[in-house]
Amino acid sequence: MNTPSNILILSCGARNLLMRYFKDKANGFHKVVGTDCSVYSSALYEADAHYIVPSIADSCYVDTVLEICRRESINAVLPLLEDELHLIAANRQRFISAGVTPVVSSEDAVLICRDKYAFYRYLRQNSLPAITSCDSFQAFLREAERGNMKLPVFFKPARGCGSIGAQKIEHEDLLNALCKHHSEPYIIQNFAEGEEFGADIYVDLLTKTLVSIFVKKKLRMRAGETDKSLSFKDGELFRLIEQTIAPLNLSGPIDMDIFKIDGQYYILEINPRFGGGYPHAYTCGINFPKMIARNLSGQTIEPKIGDYEEGVCMLKYTDLITPPFTSSSPSEAVFRA
Amino acid sequence: MNTPSNILILSCGARNLLMRYFKDKANGFHKVVGTDCSVYSSALYEADAHYIVPSIADSCYVDTVLEICRRESINAVLPLLEDELHLIAANRQRFISAGVTPVVSSEDAVLICRDKYAFYRYLRQNSLPAITSCDSFQAFLREAERGNMKLPVFFKPARGCGSIGAQKIEHEDLLNALCKHHSEPYIIQNFAEGEEFGADIYVDLLTKTLVSIFVKKKLRMRAGETDKSLSFKDGELFRLIEQTIAPLNLSGPIDMDIFKIDGQYYILEINPRFGGGYPHAYTCGINFPKMIARNLSGQTIEPKIGDYEEGVCMLKYTDLITPPFTSSSPSEAVFRA
Repeated sequence: MNTPSNILILSCGARNLLMRYFKDKANGFHKVVGTDCSVYSSALYEADAHYIVPSIADSCYVDTVLEICRRESINAVLPLLEDELHLIAANRQRFISAGVTPVVSSEDAVLICRDKYAFYRYLRQNSLPAITSCDSFQAFLREAERGNMKLPVFFKPARGCGSIGAQKIEHEDLLNALCKHHSEPYIIQNFAEGEEFGADIYVDLLTKTLVSIFVKKKLRMRAGETDKSLSFKDGELFRLIEQTIAPLNLSGPIDMDIFKIDGQYYILEINPRFGGGYPHAYTCGINFPKMIARNLSGQTIEPKIGDYEEGVCMLKYTDLITPPFTSSSPSEAVFRA
Repeated sequence: MNTPSNILILSCGARNLLMRYFKDKANGFHKVVGTDCSVYSSALYEADAHYIVPSIADSCYVDTVLEICRRESINAVLPLLEDELHLIAANRQRFISAGVTPVVSSEDAVLICRDKYAFYRYLRQNSLPAITSCDSFQAFLREAERGNMKLPVFFKPARGCGSIGAQKIEHEDLLNALCKHHSEPYIIQNFAEGEEFGADIYVDLLTKTLVSIFVKKKLRMRAGETDKSLSFKDGELFRLIEQTIAPLNLSGPIDMDIFKIDGQYYILEINPRFGGGYPHAYTCGINFPKMIARNLSGQTIEPKIGDYEEGVCMLKYTDLITPPFTSSSPSEAVFRA
């Protein structure tokens, strides 16, 4: 038996439940350290130790994370933030040289998943089901003429997170004005009513095999996050998930958004990180922290697809913590390498 | 000493913390009953008893609530939902005749607060500070010509909740297209960067006196809800709050949104109900459930404005519950009078 690992959870934000899961000694970690650039990150105060760090855009960011790894004898880093995944994947070799395993997918996979239009092209190139989309107003007019697209459509920032900036558009003049004034890349997608699903997936860090899938039916969304969901199983969907991720070099915990329209499943998006709705899977016994701990100690995970009870409901609500400071300008120092 | 009251919390949704505050025996309630039209309301499962009820649009809704009051020996009903406040206020006499106190403001006050443009006119008529607003694209062009408004502006549904549909608009053609196609009333408001504050207020149900104000500085918003906040005090703001609510016939718990721009406070909105951020006030010792219990037992509340510690921080995070059913179609019956 190997010694239990110490893990550093980066940009831990308000992931309080995830922090608690890693801290549960039964899952195999010895110490859980958290970082965030904001002293107002609630999950920081649940970690065994925490650091306020510079923004991920700061040139000393990676050095700072490496220095924390050294000080705290860290064995693995876990990025959670969309925009941080690529940074950690791109610096994989530096972490490995320092004896730290980055729990993150490959640079390539992260880039494809980061951009909704790049992911759409990936689906098309691999003959996977995709909801017709385009990346300009002109392309929309062309596709509309060919009968492939029509109003209403969904207009979304190509690199958006959650539902920020996403809107249903019913009128051509409004779509034109939106496209004209949008400075960032966007995607225009055929709008369809359908059922929404989410999947929590684990790809073994050692074998790169898909070893766990948990699917939930989304009952209600709020601000791009699943608010209420029901555990769900369907062999057809499990197969589509396996086909969709096979060509991508993914690893670790993966979150996936799925639509079902007229009996056909469509993978809408892959977020190669822990999803905000992962606590539902954990409650149903799908224990990714334990899988990470096993992988870190050199053990592989035996694949178990759909190993959970169906129809278990998860309802979110808001709780709060009061951090250990009383001030309008908290004075905790930023740690900087 | 009077007997403790039984309270019925209507459309309790995901107000789990509020439910727990009412259930805390130290606050003076004997029994707390919850209703919701959805079996997926998480707070239902924390109540002493709960009922799944028809939608508030159903013609038998008020009769159903009255029947639950009779069965459960209820002394007070507390509506939480924006769209339910008027319904309960309009049926005040029926509740009172049944021995039930509706913890809600007057019909008039509720109507003014429900519509952002009506509230803007109210502020103007009472010479209170207001951010210049209008209710049509033509009015915007007129006000722009007079130098009273200019882009960027905030475009919001007049009866919107949270931040749904609210957007910052920087271009005239986009504003024109939005206004043209918006089927519901809307408000166009000068956009200004400023500090945001929220107030939790209690107006004595018996004396109609403002007896408690808690102000928090909002540090971060998410989907129209305050995610992180700091308790805050300012006598000038307390006075403006008192002036703003004086002409309105408000009572019970009130939530208020405030902006500070160039040193001037503006009341942006009044929601005459418990705010989503009320748990911050409660954590700081501002106990509205206890005040309601005292009022119901015939006792008035001694005014204490700003009776809390400044600089206490509140950070929200998401927790979850698993309700007591396992099924994709829960079978709990709808209770109907």
